[in-house]
Amino acid sequence: MTHIKLFSPGPIEVSEKTMRAFSRPMIGHRSKDFQTLNAAIQPGLQELFFTKQPVFVSTSSAWGVMEGALRNLVSKKVLCCMSGAFSDKWFDVAKKCGKQADALQVEWGQPILPEAIEAKLATGEFDAITLIHNETSTGTMNPLTEIAAVMKKFPDVMFIVDCVSSFSGMKIPFDELGIDVMLAGTQKALALPAGAAVFTVSEKAYAKAATIKDRGYYFDFLEFKKNQESDMTPTTPSISHFYALQSKLEDIAAEGLENRYARHLENAKVTRAWVKERGFAFFPKEGYESITLTCVANNKGIDVAKLNSLLKTKHSCVIDGGYGKIKGTSFRISHMGDESTENIKQLLGWIDGCIAEL
Amino acid sequence: MTHIKLFSPGPIEVSEKTMRAFSRPMIGHRSKDFQTLNAAIQPGLQELFFTKQPVFVSTSSAWGVMEGALRNLVSKKVLCCMSGAFSDKWFDVAKKCGKQADALQVEWGQPILPEAIEAKLATGEFDAITLIHNETSTGTMNPLTEIAAVMKKFPDVMFIVDCVSSFSGMKIPFDELGIDVMLAGTQKALALPAGAAVFTVSEKAYAKAATIKDRGYYFDFLEFKKNQESDMTPTTPSISHFYALQSKLEDIAAEGLENRYARHLENAKVTRAWVKERGFAFFPKEGYESITLTCVANNKGIDVAKLNSLLKTKHSCVIDGGYGKIKGTSFRISHMGDESTENIKQLLGWIDGCIAEL
Repeated sequence: MTHIKLFSPGPIEVSEKTMRAFSRPMIGHRSKDFQTLNAAIQPGLQELFFTKQPVFVSTSSAWGVMEGALRNLVSKKVLCCMSGAFSDKWFDVAKKCGKQADALQVEWGQPILPEAIEAKLATGEFDAITLIHNETSTGTMNPLTEIAAVMKKFPDVMFIVDCVSSFSGMKIPFDELGIDVMLAGTQKALALPAGAAVFTVSEKAYAKAATIKDRGYYFDFLEFKKNQESDMTPTTPSISHFYALQSKLEDIAAEGLENRYARHLENAKVTRAWVKERGFAFFPKEGYESITLTCVANNKGIDVAKLNSLLKTKHSCVIDGGYGKIKGTSFRISHMGDESTENIKQLLGWIDGCIAEL
Repeated sequence: MTHIKLFSPGPIEVSEKTMRAFSRPMIGHRSKDFQTLNAAIQPGLQELFFTKQPVFVSTSSAWGVMEGALRNLVSKKVLCCMSGAFSDKWFDVAKKCGKQADALQVEWGQPILPEAIEAKLATGEFDAITLIHNETSTGTMNPLTEIAAVMKKFPDVMFIVDCVSSFSGMKIPFDELGIDVMLAGTQKALALPAGAAVFTVSEKAYAKAATIKDRGYYFDFLEFKKNQESDMTPTTPSISHFYALQSKLEDIAAEGLENRYARHLENAKVTRAWVKERGFAFFPKEGYESITLTCVANNKGIDVAKLNSLLKTKHSCVIDGGYGKIKGTSFRISHMGDESTENIKQLLGWIDGCIAEL
């Protein structure tokens, strides 16, 4: 099978170095070797989360932790901030967990604004909110710093933040922002294979979880914490993802965090400039474009499926043809992970060439 | 790092062929390529489960599905059959999910007998039971066929069976036995990397799940079924495990199922003969020894930790030094997965040599 490079926003291309680490021989998950491996990745993960709290690797997709956060932390009612496919779905998941939930819904592509959250929370009805920082389906980035400032007025409301596709592509300081749960998938900006998620939890959230009796086991935050104290995991982990993470954290240390963030921003700027120069529009509201992917509004009505087919045939790569209800009327270019700005420029050139052939 | 071959009962040694498949480049999980991959592994998985039902790959350890089964199927009270570390823990997990649960506890190493189950179920209190077919911590195999016969008298009681460490090492016919949920981990007899579980669900169980409103999303059996209808998964899957499974199913087809089962049985017989000849005893009650691993009672009081250390240094392999409260007073030899009987004889020879040096 031809290797098709993925410029769709996750899973994305995984480097050969990462794959070599990912396919190392198994070790016992209750062995000293595993403890050493798990301990070795802690400092790098804590640096990425800007936290003193332990960071966990969950053997699940991000949705596992997103559901887990609800089961661990919601006893009254959760406010779900909804602005795209994934944030909309979180509301459904809350109800499927038997939780009381209310919707703060805006149109896809519009940001969630702090004042809207404040108005809702002022009712006193809620003990948690869910927020997707970077809604991958629409390429929209919510104003996390401003929202975090509002959340500080409601210290009893658990602040659950999904950074699935922004994590490690930009600075998101967990401790400083006062977030209670923050999670990411490994197949996005970390450029690891799909199949695991990383997350961290505040002291306040542990205390809240302790009061909830039916929070379960597999995603029980207190079980993760207890096991992590001896560098262990509650259940048999995907050891391969730990190895891959270790390799990736080496790469990140070698590049330097600031350089990594600057590269992601530069990739975004180059892509945004291309969007404007070619007469396309952005799907997200201006000023709220994601840094790790660009969601382009297909105002020129190009045949996105055919574009992608040409990219695949001629250049062994694909972008994304739009998610769910905005498929075809939008398309998405991922510029996260290991991609250099040169790579992104090359991709944009390829897209130009293919569009010319449509 | 030296490659240490694992003869501990999971994770076990993963072949180079499997690892090559495991580390194939990522594909989009909402792509036609993924649908093709997922569809391709269905027939082989259904053959292993002896079922016409769809078989799912859960991106989680087996515990995820074990918890999921409780959340999907228990509305009244679950009877937990307990005879070792994992089956004991399932009772705790049920309580952590807020479920009513009762214990059918026997001593570690003793089997769960059908008449004990029948007596409990006759009370009418229960709508589900959990049974670990092959309790990995003690190397004890419960009499599944006889238990299944009893379960047929209680058609309204969901029959949840963990075959984590016996699956694919012997015939366990899901449809014929009338099991409602059956699951396995990929890191046991399937000899894949840790990080995923496979499971299947009966029609009766789907109907029961539909009546339970707080069963959640990540492990919602109805979500798995709905998505599988278009060869999809509810959430981003560990694509690498699908590739590894595809490779393993090829291996299994090439060997032939009957040959595979015969090899596992022969490995067990050779190991059991060694146990008797060396004057060791079995930890499980006679007649209930596992086919995929042998748990040896350390009646000779050898220094198991030192034995394992010698095996590691001299032969780059390890067995298991006993689980939890029976650590040191028992030890476990895994003979599942890809191991030939010749490999097992070689291992037993190495153990002899190392014991002579203790």
